[in-house]
Amino acid sequence: MSFGQSLTTLHTPVFTVDLQTVKRNVSQMNQRFKAMGVKLRPHMKTHKTVQGADIMTGRTRRCIEVSTLAEAHFYADAGYDDILYAYPLPFDKVEDCAALSERLEIFHVLIDSQAALEELSKRRLKAGKSWLVWLKVDCGNGRAGVRSEDPESMELAKNITLTEGVELVGVYAHCGNNYYSKGVQEIQAVAKATTNVILDFVDRLKEAGVKCPNSSIGSTPSCSHPVAEMAKLTEVHPGNYVFYDAQQMGIGSCTMEDVAVRVLTRVVGHYPHRNELLIDCGWTALSLHSLGKLPTGYAVIEGHPDLKLTAMSQEHGHIQPVSGEIDFKRFPLGSILFIIPYHVRCRKA
Amino acid sequence: MSFGQSLTTLHTPVFTVDLQTVKRNVSQMNQRFKAMGVKLRPHMKTHKTVQGADIMTGRTRRCIEVSTLAEAHFYADAGYDDILYAYPLPFDKVEDCAALSERLEIFHVLIDSQAALEELSKRRLKAGKSWLVWLKVDCGNGRAGVRSEDPESMELAKNITLTEGVELVGVYAHCGNNYYSKGVQEIQAVAKATTNVILDFVDRLKEAGVKCPNSSIGSTPSCSHPVAEMAKLTEVHPGNYVFYDAQQMGIGSCTMEDVAVRVLTRVVGHYPHRNELLIDCGWTALSLHSLGKLPTGYAVIEGHPDLKLTAMSQEHGHIQPVSGEIDFKRFPLGSILFIIPYHVRCRKA
Repeated sequence: MSFGQSLTTLHTPVFTVDLQTVKRNVSQMNQRFKAMGVKLRPHMKTHKTVQGADIMTGRTRRCIEVSTLAEAHFYADAGYDDILYAYPLPFDKVEDCAALSERLEIFHVLIDSQAALEELSKRRLKAGKSWLVWLKVDCGNGRAGVRSEDPESMELAKNITLTEGVELVGVYAHCGNNYYSKGVQEIQAVAKATTNVILDFVDRLKEAGVKCPNSSIGSTPSCSHPVAEMAKLTEVHPGNYVFYDAQQMGIGSCTMEDVAVRVLTRVVGHYPHRNELLIDCGWTALSLHSLGKLPTGYAVIEGHPDLKLTAMSQEHGHIQPVSGEIDFKRFPLGSILFIIPYHVRCRKA
Repeated sequence: MSFGQSLTTLHTPVFTVDLQTVKRNVSQMNQRFKAMGVKLRPHMKTHKTVQGADIMTGRTRRCIEVSTLAEAHFYADAGYDDILYAYPLPFDKVEDCAALSERLEIFHVLIDSQAALEELSKRRLKAGKSWLVWLKVDCGNGRAGVRSEDPESMELAKNITLTEGVELVGVYAHCGNNYYSKGVQEIQAVAKATTNVILDFVDRLKEAGVKCPNSSIGSTPSCSHPVAEMAKLTEVHPGNYVFYDAQQMGIGSCTMEDVAVRVLTRVVGHYPHRNELLIDCGWTALSLHSLGKLPTGYAVIEGHPDLKLTAMSQEHGHIQPVSGEIDFKRFPLGSILFIIPYHVRCRKA
């Protein structure tokens, strides 16, 4: 759209981003961790654009995190460097990671198994470079990562430092379990527990003579309400805060004013006999992410807490009232509704 | 990938299509409706490719159906004509539909309200052309469409024929309620009921002196197991049959041998302490479509009815056994699993 064009002239469904809100979210996150003396390594998976990355990095084009190699290549091609590929090393992608490690000044990989370390050791990097490896630790999130209390974790960290051509850069955790929190108190409890597990593990590594200069935790809830202990980390890696969404509102990471994105949709049908509107927003425009469990169904309809998005098919959304009868005159055919998505992420790359 | 390349050399996650199965599915659907003397207007929304459309139309590049104007433009640009835009006319897209109607030999639109008819009448087509309009009828699907028993439906049909510059092409229903069927008997009951409602409505229009030359119903379940009554329709409009999927298997539209698509994924983590594998297939690769309600979770893992895809995040899938303990030796890190998606559709356009 051209600058100054009214949103209501756009064809729907359409995903819109409020740039001022993005810039405010980014600025607040930057200030928060600058004040704490902790490096911010923003995750790109939410927006997957150069524009978003330029805002998040202040155009330094350094120190980012990605979740796919498609994203890694995309940003490397755009002149980005110091990229952390935050995914347990997939064995079909070792050669591709090697090429990125050789091409970029700094390309980090992440592992959580002895088998992955062996894959790395089989592929020595050229030009005297070493693989830059983060050891992924599971601090209660229950996804990837070693458990810090498991003796094998210490063993693996040692083996990384002992393996030729491989360097242990740091210890890494994703506190995704904070996505189950409700309110700042719960968010901070998870952030604190995660941080303490990571810092304790780093301390034990030091005691064991294992050099591990860095420590990082992430997730937008934790980084929106950081605890004092996080100042002892060397970096953090949130991503969603660039946009925020209805899920983050529910967790308590942000308020509605912080959510920078809306899906605009038009009313395309009135069905009074079943007390229902149809809108031109189905799961190709919005995703089924909340599984319909919000009080307002699959999303939040801005300004209409009385409306519920009860079902979606490929290009249709069904809107019913939370209770009572719809006043159809308030929602004429062709009129626009603003939807706050439950979980926002773009699909490219 | 190049011809003859092994699937196991592909980077994962990757969506694969078995072309022989596609061709067999298409050929069977073609033969089925040729034998019944009913025109087949395949829906493009499942694949959104020229390759798929060429197979489905036998390279005639005529007589297709789409669900978005992006698809309509894509196929028009590729030399396709006789395109039905099977969506209740969105008021922001009238001018765009007019342009397609003027550009193509045949471009059909679909309406279900007097208000939509008024939008069409406000924009007269150039070069003496008429808007080609299908009246959408809701035969129990509960999405868009007028109800045939509602006197206003007959009134709207009459008004379409009386409006200058607008032509009533036919009556149209999507029997999407067949997606709740279990087995051929239930599928055919819905197909029969839908067909009878449509044919009865056409008869009543004739009795009232309203010219309505065409009648169409669709959905892959109904068209995979058509009932005799469907021979009285002028056309049908299924789409998913080009690929089929786990949902269609569950409905009874097809068997596993008919499903032409797989998402290939690799094992990226072993977590014996929680009896779990991680795979490199999350909801960016697969979608949350089944809401996890299958006995095997979000999808079917081919050859492993004992495995369940219990959860997905953006790029990770969690695999647990349906019961008992995982034998991790059977699924080494880096090994490949073949996933049959619950509901298949591509994202472009």
